[in-house]
Amino acid sequence: MRLRIDLAYDGGGFYGWAKQPTLRTVQGEIEDALHKILRVPTDPTSSEAQAEPLRLVVAGRTDTGVHASHQVCHVDVTPDTLARAVGHMDVPPTVALTRRLQRILPPDITIRTITPAPDGFDARFSALERTYVYRIADRSSEVDPRMRGFVLHIDDDLDIAAMNAAAAMTIGLHDFGSFATPNPGGTTIRDVKIAYWRRIPVRPLIDDVDAMGERYRTPAAESGLLCFTIVADAFARNMVRSLVNGCVQVGVGKRSLDWFASKMATPLREGSTGPIAPQGLTLEHIQYPPNDQLAARAEAIRAKRTL
Amino acid sequence: MRLRIDLAYDGGGFYGWAKQPTLRTVQGEIEDALHKILRVPTDPTSSEAQAEPLRLVVAGRTDTGVHASHQVCHVDVTPDTLARAVGHMDVPPTVALTRRLQRILPPDITIRTITPAPDGFDARFSALERTYVYRIADRSSEVDPRMRGFVLHIDDDLDIAAMNAAAAMTIGLHDFGSFATPNPGGTTIRDVKIAYWRRIPVRPLIDDVDAMGERYRTPAAESGLLCFTIVADAFARNMVRSLVNGCVQVGVGKRSLDWFASKMATPLREGSTGPIAPQGLTLEHIQYPPNDQLAARAEAIRAKRTL
Repeated sequence: MRLRIDLAYDGGGFYGWAKQPTLRTVQGEIEDALHKILRVPTDPTSSEAQAEPLRLVVAGRTDTGVHASHQVCHVDVTPDTLARAVGHMDVPPTVALTRRLQRILPPDITIRTITPAPDGFDARFSALERTYVYRIADRSSEVDPRMRGFVLHIDDDLDIAAMNAAAAMTIGLHDFGSFATPNPGGTTIRDVKIAYWRRIPVRPLIDDVDAMGERYRTPAAESGLLCFTIVADAFARNMVRSLVNGCVQVGVGKRSLDWFASKMATPLREGSTGPIAPQGLTLEHIQYPPNDQLAARAEAIRAKRTL
Repeated sequence: MRLRIDLAYDGGGFYGWAKQPTLRTVQGEIEDALHKILRVPTDPTSSEAQAEPLRLVVAGRTDTGVHASHQVCHVDVTPDTLARAVGHMDVPPTVALTRRLQRILPPDITIRTITPAPDGFDARFSALERTYVYRIADRSSEVDPRMRGFVLHIDDDLDIAAMNAAAAMTIGLHDFGSFATPNPGGTTIRDVKIAYWRRIPVRPLIDDVDAMGERYRTPAAESGLLCFTIVADAFARNMVRSLVNGCVQVGVGKRSLDWFASKMATPLREGSTGPIAPQGLTLEHIQYPPNDQLAARAEAIRAKRTL
């Protein structure tokens, strides 16, 4: 059976999502925890481990230092293996597994829910769209050290109108070869649905005016930050951070909109189109189609590309 | 001359505000940086150091692990000493000092502004009110690991109505001896103006509906958290965290409202009224009177109490 896992993490302490032999990764931490809880040996020489390795398949493979406020992955387990999570708990096995995982995982990973996946669900290939947000504190923002782990500080004035003009050029089906790390054997053509820069409005943390009267009202912590929202069917490697870097170079006046347009027109990776720092980036959402279209979507995407 | 310094810090890496010989503190970091920039020797045997020690006076002396999104302090310097900040910069000395401090200080402290203080200004004694906010992720909130440094996770259901009934008992002039670390020679009588619990509304990060249409809209990061706002003339040591702990004990059903009322009625510190974890607490605001009342306020408060 297939389990859908919804989760969040602070990417600051991880070498990205994807498991690597000696580095701390999100996938590595969760797979290790699953093996412990479900008592599946990780030793590859064991016949049981070979029979049922617990391998996570993820919707958005985040890079080193990139966060997720809402990530989705799936794992296949046999009902017998899953039943080992229950122990003395009087709850369904997915609930028991959720609780045990939450208890065993480090505080920079949070498991939101674990549910039996509907038929045809594939965390990666069934996904319709991914939403990323990049947060920046520029010279017009108040810099709040509490949020420095997920907001990039740029001590400069940014021209938001110019940055939005650049962002608008990315919308539609394009080859993002200038703004992505090459993927041998894969494509860098992606369909960007939404891409815009906005200043987060300065709002009070609590709407209830009566409670405070004329007094100072604490603003929401993100008030006044600059943020980039981008939605696409999928993203090539380093694509969001490279686009943000391109927009910021336009925003500070270091590069022109013509430069940005030429990079979009001629897909060619070079030094000037590399990625910006990872800490400002968060994967915020994965959109899936209705349950009866999950399998068809996965089949179509599998045929179309290998990410 | 007196300088007013407005600043923010992530308290997670500090043993509180107040300077201590061998521990990392906010005051210690800033005073050390000021001594370096203004070339004032810290060696107490130097006659110059004795003549002009750079000592910060702060509005809200935060404890170990407590944050400030907006703290205020002051320091007295001679114009000659301040002039050393300018160097080759073509800006007023307070602007030069702001820039140099920002450059030299670690990333968990942010200097917002440094300005010549108006006549009669005393960061501590002129203050009218202090605002603190305590943030909690309970079972009704989404736990976001990116914010775990300034939000306390309580894996329980909290009865907000009961917690507000407790909070309401604190409003007015009371002896908070049950909810404060004793201060030999000082009083624990304080005047609480505002105290309430609210759930932070779930709001989209960006208001602009047109930009996203019917698509998923990323929520503001603090959406759905539970927060306690308290405003008082001043706070006794550990008072906010002890009140939060009392309210939370009522909220989870471990203690009754009668218990809370009895602790308010009979000021006596004991184990059950100790402070909750510091990481959820942030000093958000210091309110000062109009400039022409700064000196009178400071004089009145100095006469009334020694914190």
